[in-house]
Amino acid sequence: MKTLTKIKLLCEPTSEAWLQQALHNLDTILLDHSHCERKAAGVAVNLLFRYPSHTDLIYQLTAIAKEELEHFEQVNQWLQKKGIPLAPLQPSPYGATLKGAIRRHEPHRLLDSLLVSALIEARSHERLGLLAENCPDDELAKFYRGLMASEARHYGIYWVLAQKYCDQEQIEPRLQELAQLESDILSNLYPEPRIHS
Amino acid sequence: MKTLTKIKLLCEPTSEAWLQQALHNLDTILLDHSHCERKAAGVAVNLLFRYPSHTDLIYQLTAIAKEELEHFEQVNQWLQKKGIPLAPLQPSPYGATLKGAIRRHEPHRLLDSLLVSALIEARSHERLGLLAENCPDDELAKFYRGLMASEARHYGIYWVLAQKYCDQEQIEPRLQELAQLESDILSNLYPEPRIHS
Repeated sequence: MKTLTKIKLLCEPTSEAWLQQALHNLDTILLDHSHCERKAAGVAVNLLFRYPSHTDLIYQLTAIAKEELEHFEQVNQWLQKKGIPLAPLQPSPYGATLKGAIRRHEPHRLLDSLLVSALIEARSHERLGLLAENCPDDELAKFYRGLMASEARHYGIYWVLAQKYCDQEQIEPRLQELAQLESDILSNLYPEPRIHS
Repeated sequence: MKTLTKIKLLCEPTSEAWLQQALHNLDTILLDHSHCERKAAGVAVNLLFRYPSHTDLIYQLTAIAKEELEHFEQVNQWLQKKGIPLAPLQPSPYGATLKGAIRRHEPHRLLDSLLVSALIEARSHERLGLLAENCPDDELAKFYRGLMASEARHYGIYWVLAQKYCDQEQIEPRLQELAQLESDILSNLYPEPRIHS
């Protein structure tokens, strides 16, 4: 099994254009971040329903779901502190496009689901890192720094679960395809500021 | 607002027949309990998605979802300790029948969703109490006793959220209808041992 430090999940780094868009719209980014944490918890919980006999997956994704809900709470506390009300937000096409790439039949479905989640967590880790480095609000920057470690752990867990449950020979080529798609989606900056614009 | 101690949610108490069925099938009950905790977490998370601007609901149900996932972990640890593998289990008609009674249009949908969850938590509280009192395994009985307080708190929260978000005049009559349905479903013991057989 390849170790995580040897795996480079993302094909392309985030553009400077995204960072500038985000830094000019930190309130919207914070609200979208709340939605992202809730969606991440939802994805993990859905996998608990879909694979009720996969013991290791159940143990690991229960822990991830709990942690995503804790982050959801923490981001919501930041929103409250800044007087930003909870509200729906039109998502960028990122999540739906990646979800659409998940093949519908097993065993492909499990492999694709785990790799897509790994890629989303890896991208979130990279972008929260950029916010941590560049956000002018020191306290908020510290908060983003704190979340980065979890995102890294999460993509590691999704990757390890793929290694455990999926055909070794299929993992790497499929990762390359999905990682290319993931970077392609982000190559055109979505006009509205989002974590995954 | 009526206080919780004055509210009697359940129309009929659990039968002796259920208790005997459960006590003779404690392993199956434990496995079904795992599914129940996961489903309870799933219901709370779904409501987070459906009502993204309902701040109090979001705060309270995030806490409930986290706690249900913790209970799910704890029940799964009990299964592991007893050498019972995680596995799917055909559910009794209880959950699906109650879910089917949730009206599809707002504002009824929110009211019904909150009341159905309150009723399920109230029934779980009652039945875990019976298991706590009657289970021959002292350690398992202690575990059930520990969970009871949470279930009581959860049905209180669903009830309080109904008071906050729903038309006061509709709550009581609709609760009576749904509580009657809930007791009716359980009046015929499901032949397979389940938490809600």
